[in-house]
Amino acid sequence: MGATMLRSCARLIRRGIALPGQPQSPRPLPCCYTTPRFYSPEVIRDYAMPNATWSKNLQDLYNRYMEGSQSGAWERIPSYNATVHHIKGVPPSRTRENRLFTRNLDQDGVGFEYSMFYNKAERRMVCLFQPGPYLEGPPGFTHGGCIATIIDSTTGAGAVYLCGSVMTANLTINYKNPIPLGHVVIIDSKVERVEGRKVYTSCQIRSHDDAVLHTEASALFIKLGP
Amino acid sequence: MGATMLRSCARLIRRGIALPGQPQSPRPLPCCYTTPRFYSPEVIRDYAMPNATWSKNLQDLYNRYMEGSQSGAWERIPSYNATVHHIKGVPPSRTRENRLFTRNLDQDGVGFEYSMFYNKAERRMVCLFQPGPYLEGPPGFTHGGCIATIIDSTTGAGAVYLCGSVMTANLTINYKNPIPLGHVVIIDSKVERVEGRKVYTSCQIRSHDDAVLHTEASALFIKLGP
Repeated sequence: MGATMLRSCARLIRRGIALPGQPQSPRPLPCCYTTPRFYSPEVIRDYAMPNATWSKNLQDLYNRYMEGSQSGAWERIPSYNATVHHIKGVPPSRTRENRLFTRNLDQDGVGFEYSMFYNKAERRMVCLFQPGPYLEGPPGFTHGGCIATIIDSTTGAGAVYLCGSVMTANLTINYKNPIPLGHVVIIDSKVERVEGRKVYTSCQIRSHDDAVLHTEASALFIKLGP
Repeated sequence: MGATMLRSCARLIRRGIALPGQPQSPRPLPCCYTTPRFYSPEVIRDYAMPNATWSKNLQDLYNRYMEGSQSGAWERIPSYNATVHHIKGVPPSRTRENRLFTRNLDQDGVGFEYSMFYNKAERRMVCLFQPGPYLEGPPGFTHGGCIATIIDSTTGAGAVYLCGSVMTANLTINYKNPIPLGHVVIIDSKVERVEGRKVYTSCQIRSHDDAVLHTEASALFIKLGP
């Protein structure tokens, strides 16, 4: 599996990945998951900032991590609704019809409401997540694929902040307790080790008050680029 | 893991799962993933029917499986944009603010365009899938979480059609080749075995022309109810 993905990534690196609307011709790798840069709010909206649909639990957690960021332990990660805005060198004015999967809804509060914080010393990426009513799987509960998505995004961001651009090679998820829609959870991920191009991560999802373990997961990423 | 999920499911069965807007009181289990019934198109829209945004590749595949359904080998599965519409006994007129995760966008063609077919004799659930531009992960490619979502949905539907209501306990995914946005793929899943309440499934995602193996996965579901 790792070897297959490595070959697949090597092909992508050789060929380059065409951005949509561009011909499939060799070009520099535009990166996959990459570290975003900060824009001023007037230029591009940062969706990781609080809005009126955030519950008190989500807002309280956000405030706690923001306090942690003032001491330098945690760094808040910006989040935009198009992948290209996360890539250095692509101008924000570029018109795009594509949207990042986790930021594709027009209305606040109905989909993924989340904010991530990075702890460099501990190689941890934490995501504070409030699933909205448009993320339903079982009646009243968050879809298993939605949980997989926030795990992929959080562990992937952690891998990127340590190692640069990566692609997902494996995702293994054990669902232990369903997550009710609207309940705030914390996705706590860590880069466990790096072996060559392979970046091994682990992840737990717990309720906002730490009382319930909802999900355990591991994810393997492959480093791209030089 | 299986044992933990079994305990978790047993708790849900004992307590009942409250539908949003209802108090958390003991009530009959409303089911999780369940077999949908057919409504007439005037009552509820069936999103698994072709629309103008479907590419020729998706339409051709759909036509091929529809021919297979005339011989009785395959059964087309309806798909609605709210989970409750898939549950027997809940009237379609019931107003709901929740939406099924895979059908939560207002505009055709930008998100999950898919249709599933079930082969009872072979215990196979096949999903024909065209990822739209709002499902982006790496630039130009489908988000890993989106791929996990369509795997969870397809394998889960296969488990449901064989065993009744289930919940996801484990998802293990090996990503081998990224899926370009707009490219039609086939998710081909199978129930491998059933052991007590555990339903083991496997799954492959291939390009519409069978030339590329994009993803391999396995999923474990826990049967609910009696």
